Amino acid sequence: MAVYTDITNEELDALLREYEIGDALSCKGIAEGVENSNFLLHTQTGFYILTLYEKRVNKDDLPFFLGLMEHLAEEGFVSPTPIATKTGETLTEVAGRPAAIISFLEGRSVRRPTPDHCAFLGDTLAKMHLAAANFQIERPNTLSVHSWRALFNDCLSNPQDTSIKQSEISEIEAELSFLEGQWPSNLPTGVIHADLFPDNIFFLNDQVSGVIDYYFACNDFLIYDLAICINAWCFETDASFNITKAQKMLKAYGKVREISEAELEALPLLCRGAALRFYLTRLYDWLNQIEGALVKPKNPAEYLKKIRFLQDVKTVSAYGIE
Amino acid sequence: MAVYTDITNEELDALLREYEIGDALSCKGIAEGVENSNFLLHTQTGFYILTLYEKRVNKDDLPFFLGLMEHLAEEGFVSPTPIATKTGETLTEVAGRPAAIISFLEGRSVRRPTPDHCAFLGDTLAKMHLAAANFQIERPNTLSVHSWRALFNDCLSNPQDTSIKQSEISEIEAELSFLEGQWPSNLPTGVIHADLFPDNIFFLNDQVSGVIDYYFACNDFLIYDLAICINAWCFETDASFNITKAQKMLKAYGKVREISEAELEALPLLCRGAALRFYLTRLYDWLNQIEGALVKPKNPAEYLKKIRFLQDVKTVSAYGIE
Repeated sequence: MAVYTDITNEELDALLREYEIGDALSCKGIAEGVENSNFLLHTQTGFYILTLYEKRVNKDDLPFFLGLMEHLAEEGFVSPTPIATKTGETLTEVAGRPAAIISFLEGRSVRRPTPDHCAFLGDTLAKMHLAAANFQIERPNTLSVHSWRALFNDCLSNPQDTSIKQSEISEIEAELSFLEGQWPSNLPTGVIHADLFPDNIFFLNDQVSGVIDYYFACNDFLIYDLAICINAWCFETDASFNITKAQKMLKAYGKVREISEAELEALPLLCRGAALRFYLTRLYDWLNQIEGALVKPKNPAEYLKKIRFLQDVKTVSAYGIE
Repeated sequence: MAVYTDITNEELDALLREYEIGDALSCKGIAEGVENSNFLLHTQTGFYILTLYEKRVNKDDLPFFLGLMEHLAEEGFVSPTPIATKTGETLTEVAGRPAAIISFLEGRSVRRPTPDHCAFLGDTLAKMHLAAANFQIERPNTLSVHSWRALFNDCLSNPQDTSIKQSEISEIEAELSFLEGQWPSNLPTGVIHADLFPDNIFFLNDQVSGVIDYYFACNDFLIYDLAICINAWCFETDASFNITKAQKMLKAYGKVREISEAELEALPLLCRGAALRFYLTRLYDWLNQIEGALVKPKNPAEYLKKIRFLQDVKTVSAYGIE
């Protein structure tokens, strides 16, 4: 939810001359996407999303992200697709930023997902995993288990950091050590979305109409994507865990792509890991607030509660699956 | 530039059932409008702006604002027009806020207006004044000369106020006294926009395609609207005054609605007043920043510089008019 960079009309007009999508009729900054600046662009040929990639996105990763969207759309998955310039490029530049124009998908995200929404998500995530199976570019998960300790140390070394209690530091250190020691190594891998929170799925007429925001996508355990989604979709606002939502999500996923015994067995641990990953990035953002950002960082405390709940989950039966 | 209030899908669906514009296909918060929450809404029948009126807008004024837009659009002026519900209402409610759905106008505002843009503005402003001439509702200007001293005293009584130097306080007090003593009383009045900054005019294909944001509109001296525009459009970013822009603006205005000798004579003083009005409201917003607002208040210093420049302007010849 951000508009960090603004574009002049001259810059936009020059950009559009590289494309074959007509002249700009309107262009409005939208409150969508945390990492980048997004504009809803109307041209003579229709509506598009213009994304300007801000500093936090590594420019070298953009061919992966844009290529993935293009690949998924070609496979019939509900992904927006990057529009190519006259010379066939999907990655361009405007206002000194890497930029892309991406097709506009109708639909609205849901604030409070129901169990049925969770089933839609499971089905959609499995379809994404299958559609991405033969995508050729690879990108390691830079936010996986081996990066967490350094990230936590960065948080602790922040001069603004007076908010973390010593007991919380010890608790996170112990969780880090546990996860580093137990993290599995032999599960099916593939391209995962890695950030499929409710605001990244659009629904229209009781169908999933779009999955957006692939800017954390990477290669990792496929089941880890479900762990992220369980954490993001199945806790109520009062921090209680809704087992029906998890069950529906997992069952719907399993109907499209079978979940192996080994994956199911690893799921409780991966959920703990996913919770720690979002706790740490939120903590980092909380301690390193960007001047002028239009988005308030999310409080990491929500994910600390999830870690504590998940520490008591030993088997997948807690997710309604035997 | 703000999205203060968010709407759930259920709230939006319930709202749209009051209208005959079809179901929502998408609804995105846009970075437009300082005082209210604005959404770009796509329904089965087209694109609309959904505005939620936040606390700073007096609900009693909404029939004036919405009625004015409707009147202007009916008169053929490039104003968006409020959409009526099935029962003929243009003012509704959603998410606990007064709300309106307004037609969507294509076009883009210009960041750095050229002299030609200033001519377009002058022409457009005069057309707005004529189109509003037979609008029946009245609204006094609550931000005119008689409100400024109280507003300044409010600023000075703010506990956060440690930023205003004593010399600046004396300077503003003197300017206030001067303007209160000299303010004219006998100039042609009518409905003025009162906030026609460059971001409130859209251009498309070298024409003005829209004038938006009527939430400061009121009855006041027509020429005071030009004073506000001269201050907003004719200073360069280095604070220098561009006489060509002012000349083009005034001439274009005068071709549509003749400016009287008395109005021209009063213009330098009204420009000083308009500069003080924006200095004071910016100072107030600067000292009373809203928690969670997505917009950074504008620095009042820009308008202090304008006041100082305008204090030396004694006749309208400074604006390129004899």
